[in-house]
Amino acid sequence: MTTDSFTATDHAMMARALRLAERGAYTTKPNPMVGSVIAHGEEIVGEGWHERAGEPHAEVHALRVAGERAKGATAYVTLEPCAHTGRTGPCADALIAAGVSRVIAAMRDPFPQVDGAGFDKLRAAGIEVASGLMEAQARALNRGFLSRVERGRPWLRVKLATSLDGRSALANGESKWISGEASRLDVQHWRARSGAIVTGAGTVLADDPALTVRMGDDTPFVPPLRVVLDPGLATVARGRVREGDAPTLYLHAPDAKPPRGLLAQHAAVPLRDGRFDLHAVLALLAERGVNEIQLEAGATLAGAFLGAGLVDEVLLYVAPVLLGERARPMFDGLAIDTMTQKLKMAIVESRYIGQDIRLLLRPESTV
Amino acid sequence: MTTDSFTATDHAMMARALRLAERGAYTTKPNPMVGSVIAHGEEIVGEGWHERAGEPHAEVHALRVAGERAKGATAYVTLEPCAHTGRTGPCADALIAAGVSRVIAAMRDPFPQVDGAGFDKLRAAGIEVASGLMEAQARALNRGFLSRVERGRPWLRVKLATSLDGRSALANGESKWISGEASRLDVQHWRARSGAIVTGAGTVLADDPALTVRMGDDTPFVPPLRVVLDPGLATVARGRVREGDAPTLYLHAPDAKPPRGLLAQHAAVPLRDGRFDLHAVLALLAERGVNEIQLEAGATLAGAFLGAGLVDEVLLYVAPVLLGERARPMFDGLAIDTMTQKLKMAIVESRYIGQDIRLLLRPESTV
Repeated sequence: MTTDSFTATDHAMMARALRLAERGAYTTKPNPMVGSVIAHGEEIVGEGWHERAGEPHAEVHALRVAGERAKGATAYVTLEPCAHTGRTGPCADALIAAGVSRVIAAMRDPFPQVDGAGFDKLRAAGIEVASGLMEAQARALNRGFLSRVERGRPWLRVKLATSLDGRSALANGESKWISGEASRLDVQHWRARSGAIVTGAGTVLADDPALTVRMGDDTPFVPPLRVVLDPGLATVARGRVREGDAPTLYLHAPDAKPPRGLLAQHAAVPLRDGRFDLHAVLALLAERGVNEIQLEAGATLAGAFLGAGLVDEVLLYVAPVLLGERARPMFDGLAIDTMTQKLKMAIVESRYIGQDIRLLLRPESTV
Repeated sequence: MTTDSFTATDHAMMARALRLAERGAYTTKPNPMVGSVIAHGEEIVGEGWHERAGEPHAEVHALRVAGERAKGATAYVTLEPCAHTGRTGPCADALIAAGVSRVIAAMRDPFPQVDGAGFDKLRAAGIEVASGLMEAQARALNRGFLSRVERGRPWLRVKLATSLDGRSALANGESKWISGEASRLDVQHWRARSGAIVTGAGTVLADDPALTVRMGDDTPFVPPLRVVLDPGLATVARGRVREGDAPTLYLHAPDAKPPRGLLAQHAAVPLRDGRFDLHAVLALLAERGVNEIQLEAGATLAGAFLGAGLVDEVLLYVAPVLLGERARPMFDGLAIDTMTQKLKMAIVESRYIGQDIRLLLRPESTV
């Protein structure tokens, strides 16, 4: 189980498996992304990735390609092979049946029905097993799935488009067209990998966003659940958020009365001091299998999640414009009075998207 | 005078001359930066750059290195050779005396005492003259000098350190240590190339900056003039801005009475609606030979210059921190109520400086 013994070839194979895994980013949810490579030394004899929940796992795809050549081979998998029968049979059994002699995993699967049982099964069958190769990359890839399984809440990404002076909307609430066309297209890919896109009633009223995935091509994706935090169910009658092919879930206060004939899903969430208990919101969405949330809301809701310490990353599109001091802040409700209270972030990535700059940031406490 | 006839060698030589010119960035003011290369074909026989006002021009340095080999050579210069006797003799005469057969300039010198006269003199002596090679780069290099000569005002750069949420100071005015150490060192190089560092009385009171150049090594530089915009001369008695080796100039309202024994320079500037006439401020500094101004002030003064359309570039250090919605804006006084009024900028450059991101921006009207 030490990483010292992994060779350069092992690293190359796992890197390949990780790239394969990522191909499932838009479609595997609520399952993790998994990739697999079957090889004899440097020769790849099979590879595959998990495409959709309910369909075969990565190892099964890879073994099918390898056929008889799986015998005596090394199987690289980005996540511990499963040992339980879910909607598909256990991958550990398939690897044993195929006669692989060695299995190298990037990480153990913390999912309660696996959690080491896959490795145990393989070892019991006399297969050499090692784990931990490129684990950091594997964890980063499935940060949503891991957050749900390990922390009981989805990974929360706040998507924001701001001006250079850090404003996300004008004083009148208008927030459209701050960022450029390239950024608005780029956002679609981040939506596609999300299990839920969460917004607030205020944004529905001000911007009327559809919150659907529009990538402009035929890339397959599983539509993320659209979630509206609407304590009084004030917005259910209106809005593009109920149009299109994606499901919509309204979360409301316990005393709100869902109107008859409401065609969308709805659920009550407890309040705390008159506002949604955000931990409860996240727990509810985790129970519904949401790995990654993309929050696309106004400064108040974004600030509330940030203030509660529940923001895992910020996807920030900075447009090279100024909106002036009257415009609305990026996050509202941050009570910062001294420099020592400043909220530190780490820049994970920075790149140009059209005329804008896209920053991926993580609050320093979660880095 | 067309650019079509320039060869790849011509471009390479001029690129070299431009790099040489830039070596004078901290020391030539109020003169322009100029570089020169003397070559026979691809063989460089002499090169030089203008180092300090009052000392020899670039061509003279290059000709000294070339010696007898200047005869029949091509002289590349990033700015039209001078034809007048200032503190040094005319470079055109030196080039003629050295026997060069061709002079290629990046651009004509708009300085009234040159402005084509250098080219005329060379041509009259039978030398082949061409101009316009890499003119855009040459103009960018000397944007300060050109602004002063062509527009009668210095090039104005606003230096700002802000948080991700676009805040330049806390509500209590505190603005120190937003950006990191690497950024604070980087700023020193931009100060060194400035002819003046301008601030307001509010910043002197709140931050007490020294506004001197502290590069931490022995790089030579001409100390920029420190300028305090202080209508009532309320800050003259105090402050690090009067300490150190650089001169300090206080600009005040016409009715303010400079205290006796004031050891700094001072000058009156007319007011408009109770505030400094910023055009007059810039005209006064241009008359004093300031090519580039670096404004290091608070949101009010920065916003006033921006609102007056007098900002040529913004040097923005974005630190990966949040300061919250109570903190002060980047620019104050921008009356933006609709998206069509948003102030567009172009990102000229983006790079990491330590943990921060440095953006160089130009308002779109000046791009």
